[in-house]
Amino acid sequence: MLMVFGTAKLLAELFERLNQPGIVGEILAGVLIGPSVLGWMAPNDFLRALADLGVMFLLFRVGLEVKASELLRIGGTAMLVAVLGVIVPFFLGWGILLAWGEPQAEAIFMGAAMVATSVGITAQVLTSKGLLNHIASRMILAAAVIDDVLGLLVLAMVSSVARGKLNVAELAFTAAVALGFVFVVAKWGGRTVGHVVSRAHARLRVSEAYFALAMVVLFALSFLAEHVGVAAIVGAFLAGMALSETVDPRVEHLAQGVTELLVPFFLAGIGMHLDVRSFTESSVLALALVILAAAIVAKLIGCGLGAWSLGWRNMLRVGLGMMPRGEVGMVVAQIGLSMGVIAPHVYAVAVFMAVCTTLLAPPFLRMAYRGVVAEPEQEVLRLG
Amino acid sequence: MLMVFGTAKLLAELFERLNQPGIVGEILAGVLIGPSVLGWMAPNDFLRALADLGVMFLLFRVGLEVKASELLRIGGTAMLVAVLGVIVPFFLGWGILLAWGEPQAEAIFMGAAMVATSVGITAQVLTSKGLLNHIASRMILAAAVIDDVLGLLVLAMVSSVARGKLNVAELAFTAAVALGFVFVVAKWGGRTVGHVVSRAHARLRVSEAYFALAMVVLFALSFLAEHVGVAAIVGAFLAGMALSETVDPRVEHLAQGVTELLVPFFLAGIGMHLDVRSFTESSVLALALVILAAAIVAKLIGCGLGAWSLGWRNMLRVGLGMMPRGEVGMVVAQIGLSMGVIAPHVYAVAVFMAVCTTLLAPPFLRMAYRGVVAEPEQEVLRLG
Repeated sequence: MLMVFGTAKLLAELFERLNQPGIVGEILAGVLIGPSVLGWMAPNDFLRALADLGVMFLLFRVGLEVKASELLRIGGTAMLVAVLGVIVPFFLGWGILLAWGEPQAEAIFMGAAMVATSVGITAQVLTSKGLLNHIASRMILAAAVIDDVLGLLVLAMVSSVARGKLNVAELAFTAAVALGFVFVVAKWGGRTVGHVVSRAHARLRVSEAYFALAMVVLFALSFLAEHVGVAAIVGAFLAGMALSETVDPRVEHLAQGVTELLVPFFLAGIGMHLDVRSFTESSVLALALVILAAAIVAKLIGCGLGAWSLGWRNMLRVGLGMMPRGEVGMVVAQIGLSMGVIAPHVYAVAVFMAVCTTLLAPPFLRMAYRGVVAEPEQEVLRLG
Repeated sequence: MLMVFGTAKLLAELFERLNQPGIVGEILAGVLIGPSVLGWMAPNDFLRALADLGVMFLLFRVGLEVKASELLRIGGTAMLVAVLGVIVPFFLGWGILLAWGEPQAEAIFMGAAMVATSVGITAQVLTSKGLLNHIASRMILAAAVIDDVLGLLVLAMVSSVARGKLNVAELAFTAAVALGFVFVVAKWGGRTVGHVVSRAHARLRVSEAYFALAMVVLFALSFLAEHVGVAAIVGAFLAGMALSETVDPRVEHLAQGVTELLVPFFLAGIGMHLDVRSFTESSVLALALVILAAAIVAKLIGCGLGAWSLGWRNMLRVGLGMMPRGEVGMVVAQIGLSMGVIAPHVYAVAVFMAVCTTLLAPPFLRMAYRGVVAEPEQEVLRLG
C-alpha cells in the first residue's frame, strides 16, 4: 500500500510541477511499478478491491455535487451524445481490425472495447478543477451514465455473438430494465431518499448517523445497479445524486477522506495493467497506434456531434471528456481474452488504447476548459 | 459490503436504544451474519483487508489526539501495567488448561492468547465518549503499545517452544529492536515528522498535500513496524502521535471518513469468527466459561495492580481497558491451530474468550468511566 500510494503521489507531485495534471502522474506510477517496467507489483485482488471502492466513492462524491433535475433536463442531448459515442467508435474499431486482416470476432471485441467510457477519470479532473457545474461537464456526466448502459448492452451483444447465439428479446429486456432503473432513481430517488433519510436521521442515536445512512444508500444502490446490470459506479453516482439535496456537508467531508485515500489505487491500478513488452513487434505497435488514433477521433466526432447544440467549444470538451476508456475498456478486453475469443496481442492493443486515451484526456481537458473560470457568468450554469 | 455495514449499523442503533454501547451491537452483527447463526457470510480476505485498514485508521486517529510526551512521562507505570498484564493472564491460562488435563503445548498457547490486548476496541469506546485525555485512558494506550510488543515476544517464544527449539538470543534481539523502534519514534518522531512535513508541505503542489503526506507517514510507519516485528496498528498509532502536533485538522476529518466506513468491518469481523457450534459439548462450554472468567480476572488483577499509583478507580478502568482480546487473541489461537499444536475445541475456546472479553469490555468501561465528564477538573489532564 505504501508503495502504490507513495509512488502515485510522488509522480502526481512531479507532474503538477511540470504543469501537467497530477492524475497522469498517478496512472504512470502504476505503469512504472507494474509488471512492464520495474515489476515491483502486479495487479491483485486486494488492490482491485481498493480501486473499485475508490472509484465508487469518487462517483458518489461527484453525484453529491450534481442535481438530478439538471441532468434530466439535458437528458435528450446526453442520449444523442452517448448513442453517437457508441456507434462511431464501435464501427471504426471493427472496421480497422477487419482491414488489418484480423478475424471477425476480434474486430467486434475491439469495437466494444472502444465504446467504453471511464467517467471516473473525467470526473476526477473536473472535480479537482471545480468544473462540475459547467454545462459541458454535466453533459459528460449524463452521457457517461447512459454510455455505461449502452456499453453494457454492446458487451452483452458481443459476448452472445462470440458464443454463437444472440437472444434479442433478452437483450432488449436488460436494456429496458437498466435504463428504467437509472431513470427512476434519477427522477424520484432524491425525493424518496431525502424523505427517508431525514426521517430516519431524526430517530437515530448512533454517532455519525448521517454518514451511516448515506453509506447504506450508497451500498444499496450500487448493489441494485449491479443487480439490474449496470456498473456499481453508476449506482454510486445515483446514490450521491439522490442524497445531494438532503445530506449534511459532513458526509461529504467524510466521503472525501475515503476518496482521497483510495483513488490513487484506482489510477495506479489502470496503469499497472499495461504491459509494454507486447509491443516489441512493430506490426503490433503500428496497430496499437492506429487504434489509439481512431479511439480518440471516434469519441471526438461521435460525442462532439451529439453535443452540436452547445457550440463548438463545448463539443470539444464533451468529446474529450468521453475519451478515456480506462478500466471499462480493459474489462471488455479481459472478457474477450478469458472467453478465448481474442488473441493476446489484440488484448495488449486494447489495453494500450485504454491506458493511453486515459493518459491523454486530462491534459487536453485542461486545455479545453482553459479560461472557463475567468468568465463564469457566460458559461457556468450555477446550481440552485 | 452492504450486508456487513448495514447489519452492523442496524444492531449498533438497536444497542444504543437499549442504552448499551453501539460497538457491542456491531460485533454481535458479525456473530449474527457469520457462520454460527445465519451463515450469510464467512470471513474472507477482502473483509479482512478492510478490517485491517479500519483498525489501522482507528489507531491513527487515536494517535492524532495523543501527545507523545504525555505517554513517555507515564512510561514507567505503563511498563508495569503491561508486564503484569502479561504475566498474570499467561500463567493463569496455562495453569487452568493443565489442571483441566490438556497437554502442555495447548496450555502454553491458551496462556499466550490470554496475554493479547485488542486496543482497538478500547480506543473506539474512549474516542466515541471523548475520554482519550483522561489519565487512565492514556495509561491504557501506553500499556497497550508495550503489551503488543510483549505479546509478540510471548507468541514468538511459544511458537519456538512448540517447534522444539528456543533461541533466546534471537528473541532478546527482536525485543530490543521492537522496543527501541517504539521508543525512538515516540520520543523523536514528532519533532522529525513535524519538521519534514511542514517543509514538504510548503513545497508541494498536489491537492490535499497534507493528507497525502500524512498517509505516506502512516503507511511508512506501519510498514516499518511490521518489519521490526510489532503490529502495523502500533505503527499507525505512532504515526498519528508523530503527526499530532503538526497536522491540519482537515487530515483528521478525512481520516475519520475512512475510519467511519471501515471500523464496522473490523468489529463485525471479530464477531464473525465465533462459531457457537463447538459448544454443544458441555465440557467444552464449561472450559470456555472458566477461561473467560480467568481472562477477565487476570487482566483486572495484573493491569490493575500495575496502575496501583493511580488509585482504585483508575486501576479498575485500566484493568477493564486492557481486557478485550479481540482480533489479537484470535490471531494467536489461529497460529496455534495452523501449526497443528492446539485442537479445534481449544481453538474454539480461545476465540470464545477473545470475542466475549471484547463484548463485555465496552459496557463495563462505560460504567467505570461514569461521572468522569461531570468533574473534569479533578480527573482529566488537559492537553497542551
